[in-house]
Amino acid sequence: MTSYPLSRIAETLGLRLQGEDILITGVNTLDEAGPAELSFLANPKYAPQLASSRAGAVIVRPEHADEVKNALIAEEPYPAFARAIGMFAVPQGSFHGISPLASVSPEAELGEGCTVYPFVYIAPRVRIGAGCTLFPGVYVGEDCTLGEGCVLYPNAVLMAGCELGAGCVLQPGAVIGGEGFGFVRTEAGIQKIPQIGHVKLGSKVEVGVNSAVDRAALSATSIGDSTCLDNLVQVGHNVRLGKECLIVSQVGISGSTQVGDNVTMAGQVGVAGHLHIGDGVTIGPQAGVAKDIEAGKVVGGTPTVDYTTYLRTLSLMPRFPELFKRIAKLEKELEQLRSGE
Amino acid sequence: MTSYPLSRIAETLGLRLQGEDILITGVNTLDEAGPAELSFLANPKYAPQLASSRAGAVIVRPEHADEVKNALIAEEPYPAFARAIGMFAVPQGSFHGISPLASVSPEAELGEGCTVYPFVYIAPRVRIGAGCTLFPGVYVGEDCTLGEGCVLYPNAVLMAGCELGAGCVLQPGAVIGGEGFGFVRTEAGIQKIPQIGHVKLGSKVEVGVNSAVDRAALSATSIGDSTCLDNLVQVGHNVRLGKECLIVSQVGISGSTQVGDNVTMAGQVGVAGHLHIGDGVTIGPQAGVAKDIEAGKVVGGTPTVDYTTYLRTLSLMPRFPELFKRIAKLEKELEQLRSGE
Amino acid sequence: MTSYPLSRIAETLGLRLQGEDILITGVNTLDEAGPAELSFLANPKYAPQLASSRAGAVIVRPEHADEVKNALIAEEPYPAFARAIGMFAVPQGSFHGISPLASVSPEAELGEGCTVYPFVYIAPRVRIGAGCTLFPGVYVGEDCTLGEGCVLYPNAVLMAGCELGAGCVLQPGAVIGGEGFGFVRTEAGIQKIPQIGHVKLGSKVEVGVNSAVDRAALSATSIGDSTCLDNLVQVGHNVRLGKECLIVSQVGISGSTQVGDNVTMAGQVGVAGHLHIGDGVTIGPQAGVAKDIEAGKVVGGTPTVDYTTYLRTLSLMPRFPELFKRIAKLEKELEQLRSGE
Repeated sequence: MTSYPLSRIAETLGLRLQGEDILITGVNTLDEAGPAELSFLANPKYAPQLASSRAGAVIVRPEHADEVKNALIAEEPYPAFARAIGMFAVPQGSFHGISPLASVSPEAELGEGCTVYPFVYIAPRVRIGAGCTLFPGVYVGEDCTLGEGCVLYPNAVLMAGCELGAGCVLQPGAVIGGEGFGFVRTEAGIQKIPQIGHVKLGSKVEVGVNSAVDRAALSATSIGDSTCLDNLVQVGHNVRLGKECLIVSQVGISGSTQVGDNVTMAGQVGVAGHLHIGDGVTIGPQAGVAKDIEAGKVVGGTPTVDYTTYLRTLSLMPRFPELFKRIAKLEKELEQLRSGE
Repeated sequence: MTSYPLSRIAETLGLRLQGEDILITGVNTLDEAGPAELSFLANPKYAPQLASSRAGAVIVRPEHADEVKNALIAEEPYPAFARAIGMFAVPQGSFHGISPLASVSPEAELGEGCTVYPFVYIAPRVRIGAGCTLFPGVYVGEDCTLGEGCVLYPNAVLMAGCELGAGCVLQPGAVIGGEGFGFVRTEAGIQKIPQIGHVKLGSKVEVGVNSAVDRAALSATSIGDSTCLDNLVQVGHNVRLGKECLIVSQVGISGSTQVGDNVTMAGQVGVAGHLHIGDGVTIGPQAGVAKDIEAGKVVGGTPTVDYTTYLRTLSLMPRFPELFKRIAKLEKELEQLRSGE
Repeated sequence: MTSYPLSRIAETLGLRLQGEDILITGVNTLDEAGPAELSFLANPKYAPQLASSRAGAVIVRPEHADEVKNALIAEEPYPAFARAIGMFAVPQGSFHGISPLASVSPEAELGEGCTVYPFVYIAPRVRIGAGCTLFPGVYVGEDCTLGEGCVLYPNAVLMAGCELGAGCVLQPGAVIGGEGFGFVRTEAGIQKIPQIGHVKLGSKVEVGVNSAVDRAALSATSIGDSTCLDNLVQVGHNVRLGKECLIVSQVGISGSTQVGDNVTMAGQVGVAGHLHIGDGVTIGPQAGVAKDIEAGKVVGGTPTVDYTTYLRTLSLMPRFPELFKRIAKLEKELEQLRSGE
C-alpha cells in the first residue's frame, strides 16, 4: 500500500503544512477518513464536521487551519485534494507487454512501451503512439492513429480511420466511429446514406462507458482537446465539439451541430441537429435544445430559456391546475358583474 | 423438449388442479397457447378470452376455475405462472468448464463448477464463487470478488476491486466500475479527479444490457440485494441504491444520491446528485428529480410533485394556449367594464 | 483510391451529364469539395454556395444545371448523391475467411463466403447465411439464424434463439435478445419472470451502437424489414415494430407496445408499454407517449398532442410566469370594481 509523510504530500502539492508530519496511507471524506488518512474541506457549510472528523490531516482554507490537528493549507482545497488522490491512485490493470493472445496486424505500428492485452484486435495500417494501453476486447480498425499514452478500456471500439490525440481515454464499451444514422425516406423506401467520414478526437479527450461518437457522413466528426463525455452519451455524425467541454451522462447531440469551447451540458440534455452552441454555454438537465445558443448563456428547459426564467417556470408548474380555477372564477365573477349592470 | 404432467406442475407450484392431468409442453399467453400449453389469467378484464383460448390448461383465480377445461387454481396467478415459466426455461449457453481459450490469471481463485468461456479475461487476485458462469468477452479486473452463482453475460465488464454478492446477473455489455465522471473546472483548465473507489453489489442484483454503474471517487458505489436495473441505466459514482429497487430503462442517477429500499423508477427518469430518495418511493416516467423525496411518495414530473397533481397538470397542458386567450378576453372585458364606469 | 469518370457515375446513377467528363476521385460537401470531387445541392437555400464551391461536379436539379461547370442532373439530388457516395465507400474491415482464433461450434452451419474474425464465439446449432461478416468480440448464442449478407460489428451480441433476416446490420455493442425486464413485486419480495422468448428481425434491419432489443417473455419481440434503430435505443420485451421505421438515438419503447410501418421517432422519445402506434406516425423529440396514436398523426410533447399544438404550447412556456402576474392583476382589479359598487 502506498504511503507518504504528510510533509511529502505538502511539498508535492505546493501547500503549507501546519501540525505534525504524520504518515498518510490514503485519502477519504471527512466522514469516513481515519487517523492515517488525508481529507479536505471545500464547502464552508461542512466546517462543523471538522470537529468530529477522525481524519489524520485535512486540506483546508487558511481560515480553518486552526480547527484541525494537522492541516495542509490551500486557497482551493478541492483541486488540491484531487491531486492528492492522484498520489494514491492505483491504475487499472496489471498486465504489461504485447499479449500473444492478441491479434495484431503485421502492418500495424506500435510505439514503445505499449500494452496490448489478450483478445485485442488491431487492423492493418493502425499507428499507435508510445505508452498506450489496450485492454481485452478492444477493436482498432484500419488506418486508425492513436497519440501517445492513450488508454482504451475493455471492449472499447475504434472503427476504421479514426484519430485519437495524445492521452485520450475510452471507458469500457465506448464506440468511436460507428456508422452515423444516415437514412432518407424515398418513394422506393428507406435509402441508406453510406457514412464514409471518420472521427477525430483531440488530446486528453475522455469518452464514457458505452458512449457513442458516430463517424461523419463525409469528412469528420470532431471533439476538441480535454473535452470529457460521461457515460451513455450520443454524439451524432459531423458534430463538432470544442475544447474543455463537460458533457454529462445520457446527453444526445444530433448530427452536424457545432458546439464551442468550455460548454457544459447536464444529464439527459437533447440537442437538435445543425445548431450552433456558443463558447462557455451551460445547459441544464433534460433540456431540449432546438435553436442556436449564444456564447456565455446559461439555459434550461424545452425550449431553452435563460436558467432563471426556467427555474421560475418550473417552480410555478405545480400551480398550473390552480390557474384554471382562478380564471374560471374570474370569468364567473365578471359575468355576474356584467349581468348586474 | 421439456414436458411435465399438469399434476406435476400443480404439485411444484403448490396449486390445486381441477380437470384432466394432461401433458404440458410449454407456456404461452391466452391468445397464443395451444392445447398442450399452460397459460394464465391475472387481470379479470381479460376473462372473456378464456372462452376462445385454445390453451390446454390455465392458471386462474378460484372464481374462474369453471370457465376452463383444465385449471390450476391460484390466489395470485401471475407469480404462479412466472414460476411455471421457470420450469420450462432453458438457460442461455451450452458450454461448461474452463475454456483453454480464456485468459485466467494463475493468481485468481475459482470456486467449484464455474464456467469460463473462451475470450474471458480474469485478472490477478480475483476470487470467484462456486457455480459462476462468465460468457465470452467478459473482463474481470484485479481484486474483484464474485459470490456464488453469478452470471456475467457476453462482454460484461467488472473493473478492478468490485464486489458482487451471490446470484448477481450482468446482462451483455453491462459495465460495473467504470470511472466516475470526476472533473473540476479550474483556472488552469479541466482537472481530473482520480476515481479510486469501487462498486459493491449485494446478492441477486441484476444489471441490464449496456448499463453503467460507476465506481466511487472514494469508498464505494453500492446497490442493495435484489435490486434490478434495466438496460442503458446510468448509476453515478458514490450512489447508494437500497434493496429491491426496480430501475427501468434509460434512468440516470447522478453522483452521491442515496436511494432507499423498494424504490421504483420508471423509464428515462433523471435524478440529480446528492439527494435522498426515501424507501418505497415511486417515480413516474421521464421525471426530473431535483430535490429529496420522502418515503412512500408517488411522484412525477419536473420538478417532481405528487403523481395525482402531475397527471392533472399533464392533462391540462394541451389547454395551455387556451389560457392566454381566456386571460386576454378577461382583460379586455374588464377594461370595457372599467371604462364604462 | 477509387476513381471514376464522371460519365460512368452518370450512367450508374441514371443521370444526365452536362459539361466535361472529368475524373472523380471522391465525394464531399459543397463547402469542402475539391476540383476532383463530386458534390450535390438538395436544398435550394444553399444555391448561392454553387458559385463559390470548388467542386469538380455537382448533382443538381435541372434549374441549377447552368450554375456549375459540370453537372449531373437529377430530380432528387440527395438520394442520387447517397448512391454516388456508395460508389466510393470502402467497407469496414479487411480480414476475410474464418479465423482460427474464433471459437466456432462444430454444430454451427456457415454459408459460403462468410468472414469470422478472431475472438468471435458461435454457439452450437447456429445457422449463418452466405456472405455474413462477424467482427471481433461478436457472440452468437445457440440456435440463432442469420440471413445472407448480415454484418455484425465488433462486440455485437445475439443471445440464444434469435433470428435475423438477410442484410441486417448490428453496429458495435448492439445487443439482441438480452433478458427482458420481467420482475413482479410480491409479498415475498421481487420475483423474476424468466424470459423464454426470442427476437426476430426482418431483412435489412439496422441496429445502432450499444442499442438493446430485449427478447420476449414468451414468443417474440419483432422488428420489420428495413427498420433502422439509431444508437443507444431500448426496445423492450414483446415489442412489435413494423417495417421502414426510423427510430432515432436514445428512444425507449416499453414492453408489448405495437408500432406500425413507416413510423418515425425523434431522439429521446419514451413510449409506455402495451400501446398501439399506427402506421406513418411521426413523434417529435423527447416526447412521452402514454396513449395510443392513430395512423398518420404527427405528435409531440408529454402527453403527446398534435405537433402544431405542441409547438404553440412550447412557444408560450417561457411566458408562464407572466400568466400568474396577469391573473393576479385581474383579480385585484375585479375586486376593486366589486368593492366600488
